[in-house]
Amino acid sequence: MIRTVYVNGDYVLETEATVSIFDRGFLFADAVYEVTAVLNGMLIDNPGHIARLERSCKELGIKMPLSAEQLTAVQKELIKKNNLQEGGVYLQLTRGNEGDRDFSYSDDIEPTLVLFTQQRALINSKPAQQGIKVLSMDDIRWRRRDIKTTSLLPACLSKHIAHQAGCDDVWLIEDGFVTEGGSSNAYIVTQENKIITRPLSNDILHGITRASLLKLAKDFDIEIEERSFTIEEAYAAKEAFVSSATTFIWPVISIDGNVIGDGIAGPLASKLRDIYVKTAIELAE
Amino acid sequence: MIRTVYVNGDYVLETEATVSIFDRGFLFADAVYEVTAVLNGMLIDNPGHIARLERSCKELGIKMPLSAEQLTAVQKELIKKNNLQEGGVYLQLTRGNEGDRDFSYSDDIEPTLVLFTQQRALINSKPAQQGIKVLSMDDIRWRRRDIKTTSLLPACLSKHIAHQAGCDDVWLIEDGFVTEGGSSNAYIVTQENKIITRPLSNDILHGITRASLLKLAKDFDIEIEERSFTIEEAYAAKEAFVSSATTFIWPVISIDGNVIGDGIAGPLASKLRDIYVKTAIELAE
Repeated sequence: MIRTVYVNGDYVLETEATVSIFDRGFLFADAVYEVTAVLNGMLIDNPGHIARLERSCKELGIKMPLSAEQLTAVQKELIKKNNLQEGGVYLQLTRGNEGDRDFSYSDDIEPTLVLFTQQRALINSKPAQQGIKVLSMDDIRWRRRDIKTTSLLPACLSKHIAHQAGCDDVWLIEDGFVTEGGSSNAYIVTQENKIITRPLSNDILHGITRASLLKLAKDFDIEIEERSFTIEEAYAAKEAFVSSATTFIWPVISIDGNVIGDGIAGPLASKLRDIYVKTAIELAE
Repeated sequence: MIRTVYVNGDYVLETEATVSIFDRGFLFADAVYEVTAVLNGMLIDNPGHIARLERSCKELGIKMPLSAEQLTAVQKELIKKNNLQEGGVYLQLTRGNEGDRDFSYSDDIEPTLVLFTQQRALINSKPAQQGIKVLSMDDIRWRRRDIKTTSLLPACLSKHIAHQAGCDDVWLIEDGFVTEGGSSNAYIVTQENKIITRPLSNDILHGITRASLLKLAKDFDIEIEERSFTIEEAYAAKEAFVSSATTFIWPVISIDGNVIGDGIAGPLASKLRDIYVKTAIELAE
């Protein structure tokens, strides 16, 4: 099935969806994005994603071309047009196109907005059930990882290296501490059943799923501590897992070849995933 | 005049030059580029740029779709079609487009190649004659600045801040030392008339103009030392300047409001610029 996608106000076939070669998203990675999960044809945690998009835009001085309500309407229209039941809606906003290449930009430049759907099994996915193997690697990204930009080459490269090493993803390390996963937030569970995850700063993405998990853990009396942890602490953890918009929670069963816990999806990660999915579906729109 | 540009084998009008929204250059900044200056309708230092493109591709595992000779033929054809006398030819190569968004990529993906010309006064330019004012700022870029990728958002942002502060460009600082300019290599001249510039590493771009200047300085008995220098050392310098493909050399007359030397284009920077331009034109092709 050929998807219908959205480009600057128009719904077009994916095979005909293009942007100018002078778009700053193409020339400078001068762009931000969001991915919202879809379950049962409904958007998961979407207000958080739209709010983070607004924050990213504000940090970079990129104009929001549509209101939160209008963006959500486009997301829903795409879900409908593509009859999407499960997967995600990708949204990318670039600073725009001034017809030539110049580092400088004017303040009244009109942004470029692109959205498309992706069909994917999120609930019954193999990694969710069996867990993933991760490889640790130096975090060489720029220092504003709190802004969700399309400068994703380091993520592509590190994931590629992980795949070549027989792993599924990476955990990134800076100054001895784990920052986050290749496209996810990272968590470990101590022998005392306490979940540890790095506190928010410019060093990591402010995960929307992460925020929901923190709230849910509190509601369900699951202890979470926000502090940095080392990779050695992770090797010795009872459980480990990652969270992101479209994975929800995936257990981590091995780090750098070190089996984590029993080498299967841990009970706390599984419990938290179940709680998250159940609540997310109830709140979906 | 509407330019003719090059996109994947076709010469098209700039107004019709597009790439798919699924191109990895657009979605992931998974792309490299080069800019070659043009003087008298001829390419300046081009073999160095093509060689660096090949190196960038090798580092990232991006395929070169054309040979060095074929790329040069496209550059020359664009110069001819657009009757370009002075300016530059921009070349961008992305990993390609596999029809959807996925961090992972296959090894046999076909790259996307885009080239276009830009008309600009390079010889008689105001910054070359009067010098530029720079503002120093933390270097927050990723750690592989030796690879010339399109992850240029930090450069766009820092230049924007500099412009808002009444400056023309930035000098970036890491661990107390100047790395480079916003899109150039950085140099100072000591009171003993010795030129100082940071040695090559992954911390800075391996400038093609920089390499030519080092060779020329040697030929003309101008002393250049490759070592890191602090911003305080730069404030106290006799002269300062930057080099890049399309600026050649631009004197720096002020850093963070500190006037450098006499606050005008320095004699050594001007001499080196003259030598570079003269030699570059002789070697142009």
